[in-house]
Amino acid sequence: MTDLRINQQRLWDTLMEMGQIGGTEKGGCNRLAGTDLDKQARDLFVSWCEAAGCDITVDRIGNIFARRPGLNNDLPSVATGSHLDTQPTGGKFDGVFGVLAGVEVLRTLHENNIQTPTPMEFTVWTNEEGSRFQPAMQGSGVYVGRFDLEEELNKTDVDGIRLGDELERIGYLGDAEPRSRNFGAFFETHIEQGPILEDAEKSIGVVRLGQGIRWYNIDIQGRESHSGTTPMYLRKDAMVAASLVIAELEKMAHRHENGLATTGFMQVYPNSRNTIPGHIRFSADLRNPNPDVLTRMHEELLAFCKQLSVDRGLEIKVDPFWYFAPVEFNASDDVKAATEKLGYSHMDIYAGAGHDACYMADLVPSGMIFTPCKDGISHNEVEYSTPEQCAAGANVLLHTMLEASERIAGQTS
Amino acid sequence: MTDLRINQQRLWDTLMEMGQIGGTEKGGCNRLAGTDLDKQARDLFVSWCEAAGCDITVDRIGNIFARRPGLNNDLPSVATGSHLDTQPTGGKFDGVFGVLAGVEVLRTLHENNIQTPTPMEFTVWTNEEGSRFQPAMQGSGVYVGRFDLEEELNKTDVDGIRLGDELERIGYLGDAEPRSRNFGAFFETHIEQGPILEDAEKSIGVVRLGQGIRWYNIDIQGRESHSGTTPMYLRKDAMVAASLVIAELEKMAHRHENGLATTGFMQVYPNSRNTIPGHIRFSADLRNPNPDVLTRMHEELLAFCKQLSVDRGLEIKVDPFWYFAPVEFNASDDVKAATEKLGYSHMDIYAGAGHDACYMADLVPSGMIFTPCKDGISHNEVEYSTPEQCAAGANVLLHTMLEASERIAGQTS
Repeated sequence: MTDLRINQQRLWDTLMEMGQIGGTEKGGCNRLAGTDLDKQARDLFVSWCEAAGCDITVDRIGNIFARRPGLNNDLPSVATGSHLDTQPTGGKFDGVFGVLAGVEVLRTLHENNIQTPTPMEFTVWTNEEGSRFQPAMQGSGVYVGRFDLEEELNKTDVDGIRLGDELERIGYLGDAEPRSRNFGAFFETHIEQGPILEDAEKSIGVVRLGQGIRWYNIDIQGRESHSGTTPMYLRKDAMVAASLVIAELEKMAHRHENGLATTGFMQVYPNSRNTIPGHIRFSADLRNPNPDVLTRMHEELLAFCKQLSVDRGLEIKVDPFWYFAPVEFNASDDVKAATEKLGYSHMDIYAGAGHDACYMADLVPSGMIFTPCKDGISHNEVEYSTPEQCAAGANVLLHTMLEASERIAGQTS
Repeated sequence: MTDLRINQQRLWDTLMEMGQIGGTEKGGCNRLAGTDLDKQARDLFVSWCEAAGCDITVDRIGNIFARRPGLNNDLPSVATGSHLDTQPTGGKFDGVFGVLAGVEVLRTLHENNIQTPTPMEFTVWTNEEGSRFQPAMQGSGVYVGRFDLEEELNKTDVDGIRLGDELERIGYLGDAEPRSRNFGAFFETHIEQGPILEDAEKSIGVVRLGQGIRWYNIDIQGRESHSGTTPMYLRKDAMVAASLVIAELEKMAHRHENGLATTGFMQVYPNSRNTIPGHIRFSADLRNPNPDVLTRMHEELLAFCKQLSVDRGLEIKVDPFWYFAPVEFNASDDVKAATEKLGYSHMDIYAGAGHDACYMADLVPSGMIFTPCKDGISHNEVEYSTPEQCAAGANVLLHTMLEASERIAGQTS
């Protein structure tokens, strides 16, 4: 079994075939959740899984579960999967690679007539991207109980079309209840969507954590006045104050191990060249894998803004409107063991963005396998990984699932 | 003559009457250049000047000159004036006060049968605000030869309507050539549009200079990437770089006497909360009354951006697209002498914004008289000065013009 490998060319061919559904001129994909294109992609996935001997179940939020029986079908299954929906100008790999790495694992098991100790399940989660319907990670979020099923089915797109109606229309409004699968472990293979593996020249990232995230809206209220007639000592310049906060955010990120801090969004009022801005709204995005460190970063941001407000006589409102607690991937040792067995270069890493596995970790021991992507670029039509990089990820998934299946069977025997 | 004073109530009543033409619900004015409302305001000015014994001339860009004869009509006249057009949500004082202070001086001379040594002229300059047609200070700019007459007449508003056609339609396309008036001095009374006089509790600002202005577009090109997956050491964050430039601009302004630096405008691409901005465009506005200091500020900005670009591996383009050289008001001693004679509290000040007098200073010795405005607010419907503050400015204008008229007659006799 140690010598078992997936078929690199076949994996690549499925990626390219799936990429044609909603394929864009620039080589990317536009395949939004609940569309006809989403249906085509789902149908293709289902046909591939059925051809490799799986039974198909669809749940009430449209998640698909393709089950391959094992030696003992009363044991919890080892599951993998990701999503088939894309950003409007997305790539061919984000999400899709995780689903098709699963299909390739399935085919490899199937063609080699391998009987695994536990069943294996290959999944597709509904609307991970959150592009057409919000929020992101909707299907996995409903599955684990973070979101209410009926509320999410009633979510509408910009044209007022309900998700539930679209799922029914495309034939993927199933009747299985959320949380009704008997999973023993869940693994997700995904392109890193960042530059770390490429920069470190590693083939595999063993994802230990999904980092914690805190999002803020910061409003600075100064005093609008004329750039030519207001001396420096009488200004209440919201722009300068915002700049000091942003510069401090960078320093704060550097002060804390693994700290990240970003301002991606800013609105300036009145946004006129010769008027000192009276009001600025901007975002702060703080991330850290360690919840205690993230709390310290949070407190430092609040303290800095409070002091700045006093020093400059400005009103600064900091609204910490979203917190996503760090997620521990308790099955990451299975990933590491498989990676080492296969001899791929690797490093421990943590997930910077949200993934379906981050929610699945609520329910079952989970793990993620990251593979490099060119220049760290994702959510972009030029998103790219090489056939070799994809094959490495799928091979690690194969052996991780085998490892986990053995482990689960051993624990319960 | 030393005891001569304007009529405070009458001045206030003309301000309020003029303010009804285009008056807004919030107590401001919306009276754009070349509109029917502009015509009404001009007609009212002309009727007031004619009633006080003036001859009216209109030039080819619509500037109005109301001339009151003096003892020797071969001598150059002493002129005053400002503009009657307003911002779309402007106030009742910006510009208008300068015109109506002139009318009040005219009426005071007229009712007291005062024969001045030289003629006096009371002017209205076309489209000072630059709101409907660009650039600002269009009428005075054409008059002094900074702009080409035909080019400016062909300027169109957002609906494609020509300035020249609008001036003809409202009856103010005259035939006098620019630069055809025989002026010996020009004075403009104006609300300060800033907080300095109010803050210093002074009634009159003797404007010594129009400060120099340098305008820049700064483009920072970094690398767009994901806020959750890009470690700090691999970022090329255009937002942080822009913040460092903006914070440095403030420091630079403080380093240089009378330095001003402002960023009023910013556009962020893609302006998404969880994407590190890849491109930022923002403005810089540097001002200083001393041209050498302004040049040093310019050089420091270029040097800072160059070093930052090297330090952070970002592309920073600094485009210094506009330079307005400082203007010296050579007739400001007349203003000072009149102010002191009248016993008003006063201070030397410089004009932070552009005014018609800044262009008139190209041709003749000129001066400006600033009066306080509430909270330094202008270009706003809540713009306000008290009747007493307006009266002080008009009294200083009266005695400044008398002073200048005596001086000119004395020099040439």
